[in-house]
Amino acid sequence: MTVNEAAQFLLCRDRFAVLIHDNPDGDAVGAGYALCLALWGLGKSAVVFCGDPVPRRYSYFTAALPEQSFIPETILSADVASMGLLGDRIKEYATHVDLCIDHHPSNTGYAAQTLLDSGAAAACEIVYAVIKKMGAKITNPIAQALYTGISTDTGCFKFSNTTYQSHAITARLMRTGIDTAEINRLMFETKTRGRVEIERQILNRIEYYFGGRCAVIAVTLEMLEKTGAAQDELDGLTALPRMIEGVIAGVTLREKEGGRVKASVRTRKPLDSSKICGRLGGGGHKFAAGCEISGSLAEAKAKVLAIIEREIG
Amino acid sequence: MTVNEAAQFLLCRDRFAVLIHDNPDGDAVGAGYALCLALWGLGKSAVVFCGDPVPRRYSYFTAALPEQSFIPETILSADVASMGLLGDRIKEYATHVDLCIDHHPSNTGYAAQTLLDSGAAAACEIVYAVIKKMGAKITNPIAQALYTGISTDTGCFKFSNTTYQSHAITARLMRTGIDTAEINRLMFETKTRGRVEIERQILNRIEYYFGGRCAVIAVTLEMLEKTGAAQDELDGLTALPRMIEGVIAGVTLREKEGGRVKASVRTRKPLDSSKICGRLGGGGHKFAAGCEISGSLAEAKAKVLAIIEREIG
Repeated sequence: MTVNEAAQFLLCRDRFAVLIHDNPDGDAVGAGYALCLALWGLGKSAVVFCGDPVPRRYSYFTAALPEQSFIPETILSADVASMGLLGDRIKEYATHVDLCIDHHPSNTGYAAQTLLDSGAAAACEIVYAVIKKMGAKITNPIAQALYTGISTDTGCFKFSNTTYQSHAITARLMRTGIDTAEINRLMFETKTRGRVEIERQILNRIEYYFGGRCAVIAVTLEMLEKTGAAQDELDGLTALPRMIEGVIAGVTLREKEGGRVKASVRTRKPLDSSKICGRLGGGGHKFAAGCEISGSLAEAKAKVLAIIEREIG
Repeated sequence: MTVNEAAQFLLCRDRFAVLIHDNPDGDAVGAGYALCLALWGLGKSAVVFCGDPVPRRYSYFTAALPEQSFIPETILSADVASMGLLGDRIKEYATHVDLCIDHHPSNTGYAAQTLLDSGAAAACEIVYAVIKKMGAKITNPIAQALYTGISTDTGCFKFSNTTYQSHAITARLMRTGIDTAEINRLMFETKTRGRVEIERQILNRIEYYFGGRCAVIAVTLEMLEKTGAAQDELDGLTALPRMIEGVIAGVTLREKEGGRVKASVRTRKPLDSSKICGRLGGGGHKFAAGCEISGSLAEAKAKVLAIIEREIG
């Protein structure tokens, strides 16, 4: 389906439920709410359905959609690559999706109609095009929702999926006067005291191997207990060791209950993370992979280092 | 001077030296080299003059400017707010600047002519407009230079100085096919061992005041000596304390030779950094300002904290 056809379809329908994936990120929440806000602005009824609660940190735009009570007639999905990503609470709708708007090349085509642009950095970029085509006004909350999706899916325009379209759309969203710095502060720049404490302890124990080409950091159960840091406060920690100059293999070890260790490996050329983790029963991408190892932290470290030593040569 | 007048002036002249400030950042190097590359592309001679060596990490675009040997006739400056920011090696030119292109509201007007746009997030945004107006081609290295300036001065589009123009210009730069992800990796995602060590020591000594609303970090001369970290490895450190949840005043103190301390203050609403630093003879923007204080680290800290305490109330 083209953007134009999707817009015409939406204009002809009413009573929308927009499904987004479980454990929703900024792009899913942004795309779902931007679409609903635009449809609502056109006088239609539209709600977001998600298997998980929508995180409160997105309330700066989700709060703009009024509560509506109606029986859904048109089922949409946004940023949902496959039916399996829908939570149990909304699984019943999975086989009845009228239109899916997505940017994942792996989209399984589960919907009756699909508007897919795998070149888009974020589903929100496609939703922006649809909203414009429908002739709906880009209000402040819609601009905030769409910006949130683009910014979070591109790592604030840092990742290689960022295109000139990401910037061109953002320029137009910013003309509505939204405070993007505040959105980025909420999404990227806030560290809890627990997180700062974890980073401090990690930096105090960072270890280098193989002439500085490998760096290892470890998060122990004791560190988590003492700092009171929650699991989601550890996000992005795995990027730290590979950031260090000269490091081509960055290893993050996380001690788990029951004598197991989660290893996250991040590499640079010519090392292949998925090959390293594959040897330990894990997998992933070329430069980012993971595996679980049974044993103590010291044992897990020895196992990973033995494999990296062979690869680094 | 308007963009058009500046472009006409440059088109009429030749044999350019573009002065940039000491301890040059991405915007200074980007603006200086983009301007020279464009003028050189128009068949003119143009070189960048800097009191300090231009850091090697910008070589992906600086290397594109060929060596040229000539006696400068037209003196330009880019991203230089005052004569005091020019290093000793190029001070002789300070009083002979024909045209200054800048975005600092604090520009002292030291040049014969000034093209100032204090609404621009980066000097590179203004240089882009001038290059377009001159009719010069935006080559790959020029696009890389301009992108580097915009990206580094906006913290990769995160800071509040980012405007829709920053994104609109970036969209046009990206159409030349530059690899922005690689530039961002070099600018933001690589930390030297010295930098990692400085961060470790800083996190070990971070101090909180006023119920966690103020965080203070300090870089001593001893830390710089022992870690061997260069001045430009400290870039971005000042953003750290304000990142912490609940902190509305982040203070970075840097011990300097001769019993002086450089204080960088970063605030959030409702605190005004320039007001705080203004009380100590410094200045800057609302959420980012600085000043120099004579005395020991402990004395400087006491002075800054006394002012913040009054403001925080």
